[in-house]
Amino acid sequence: MSRYIGIDIGGTNMVCGLTDGEGQVLRTVKIATEAPSGSKEVIRRLAEAVTGLMTHAGGQVSAVGIGLPGFVDHVQGISELAVNLGWKNVPLADELRGHIGDIPVFLDNDVRMYVYGEAVAGAGRGFSHVLGVTIGTGMNSALVADGKLYYGAGGRAGEIGHVPMEGLTYPCNCGMTGCLETAVSANGIARQGREAVARGERSLLGEWFPEDGGARLTAADVSRAYDLGDAAAAAILRRTGTLLGRGLAAAVTQLAPQVLIIGGGGAQAGERLLGPMKEELKRCVLPFYWEQLTVKTAERLEDAGVVGSALYAKGRLEAQAQQ
Amino acid sequence: MSRYIGIDIGGTNMVCGLTDGEGQVLRTVKIATEAPSGSKEVIRRLAEAVTGLMTHAGGQVSAVGIGLPGFVDHVQGISELAVNLGWKNVPLADELRGHIGDIPVFLDNDVRMYVYGEAVAGAGRGFSHVLGVTIGTGMNSALVADGKLYYGAGGRAGEIGHVPMEGLTYPCNCGMTGCLETAVSANGIARQGREAVARGERSLLGEWFPEDGGARLTAADVSRAYDLGDAAAAAILRRTGTLLGRGLAAAVTQLAPQVLIIGGGGAQAGERLLGPMKEELKRCVLPFYWEQLTVKTAERLEDAGVVGSALYAKGRLEAQAQQ
Repeated sequence: MSRYIGIDIGGTNMVCGLTDGEGQVLRTVKIATEAPSGSKEVIRRLAEAVTGLMTHAGGQVSAVGIGLPGFVDHVQGISELAVNLGWKNVPLADELRGHIGDIPVFLDNDVRMYVYGEAVAGAGRGFSHVLGVTIGTGMNSALVADGKLYYGAGGRAGEIGHVPMEGLTYPCNCGMTGCLETAVSANGIARQGREAVARGERSLLGEWFPEDGGARLTAADVSRAYDLGDAAAAAILRRTGTLLGRGLAAAVTQLAPQVLIIGGGGAQAGERLLGPMKEELKRCVLPFYWEQLTVKTAERLEDAGVVGSALYAKGRLEAQAQQ
Repeated sequence: MSRYIGIDIGGTNMVCGLTDGEGQVLRTVKIATEAPSGSKEVIRRLAEAVTGLMTHAGGQVSAVGIGLPGFVDHVQGISELAVNLGWKNVPLADELRGHIGDIPVFLDNDVRMYVYGEAVAGAGRGFSHVLGVTIGTGMNSALVADGKLYYGAGGRAGEIGHVPMEGLTYPCNCGMTGCLETAVSANGIARQGREAVARGERSLLGEWFPEDGGARLTAADVSRAYDLGDAAAAAILRRTGTLLGRGLAAAVTQLAPQVLIIGGGGAQAGERLLGPMKEELKRCVLPFYWEQLTVKTAERLEDAGVVGSALYAKGRLEAQAQQ
């Protein structure tokens, strides 16, 4: 019976999972990334974990899939740029194979893996065109059409967080101003909470974070205040959801997805965010787009990265076999 | 040697062209659509023209492709809704085959055909990801990725003209308000010209159309005034181009095209429109999207519909053979 290994590399931890061909996770290993030790050392320790899972699987592992942040050359298996790992042009697939032997290793960026996992074995199961949006530290998207990831030229498609929005004036890390993710992200929600505190708005947020002007305030605090009936928190989540809906209107119109999946930490805001998002999206797209669209939160919040990477490896392996 | 017939059905005329397999047009026939005579009669006359071309080709026609306005079920070959033809659920492929014999007939909407033709045998030749935008009476788009049209769920992808834009308040025919195409279209440009006249702005447009408040003013008049140094006309085309750039920023980010082709009658405004469009687009997308993007006007302004339909038929035929 074929097994797959899916790996989710983050700035803090690396999670390796052994799965079956349907995306059921049989065993996971989580190790610290310790990126400052350098890519060779990170890959050596990753290889140890992978070898352990391969031994456990009794030699039945058919392929390894890896999702990692930043820009990835998914054809050559190279991490082109992963800022929070300090990696540039690291030939990850080849180096890992050097440790674990001649087994196919496929990689892609973590958002695509996440959305692919949701499309194949999560909230997108049974839908032909899946648009997945992750709202975390930043905001990203990926499209799976008829079971295939869409890449665009240079594999660059989907940086939906970096579109300037009318009325937003926050500086973005990317160098532009007013990008969607400056408001629609965990950081963006926290930023708006801190602004409310700094403006001296009457709010639980100001009561909770009096001394430091709210510097430690997080997106989760805004949701917590919302649940206690706080008007300032409600206004922040309404504004953020409305911006998200407006930002997604162009994507929904351009791509005509059958299902829109909202994932990442931001999905934890749930209907507080998705309520106003859906209202605005419905207002901003032609009726037939809305009528054929299902909006869902991601199903596999914990292991979507691992499952996605494993199923992605399976998919790439099958595509190779067909050629 | 294989020949193909490409047909472009419009509200006024139907153009049928005989092509070779590379999209070279060997002979065209243009007949009035006369939509009020009803779909059966329109199809009967279309069949006459097709039969004439087939005879001319000496029985070497391998397939027929048809582009027509509105919603098309490209799998079943049905015109689901073509408002300006008065058609609803017309089984065009089957009915045409009833007249011309058992030859494959494929259809799709005219914008997809147009963009497909440009992608395969026009301005998009040699580019992997082609985003085509037609600016005519309205505004539309289609994507050809690695030689394949993107459809989206229900074949609905690409109605990019119907996304409400911040700051636009014109009512749209679709029922929404402030859609991109209310400004970015031949009608939209003319509308802005008429507004300038109605506001009594000092402009050649007001001199040319004094009596009727500019009701007969067209987009071409605005371009003509622009070329004579008219400030009001320049402002209109700058505003329209800027809106176009902003509207396309989300599409370019979502799709990462290698080439953006602007076609339709609006392409005749050329740099007057594309200058400000490119400026705004560059401002609103991450640098790597801009750096990998080529912006061009459509090459085949006259026969792109016919060529696209013919090459589309060839492509569908080859795809069937591979299955």
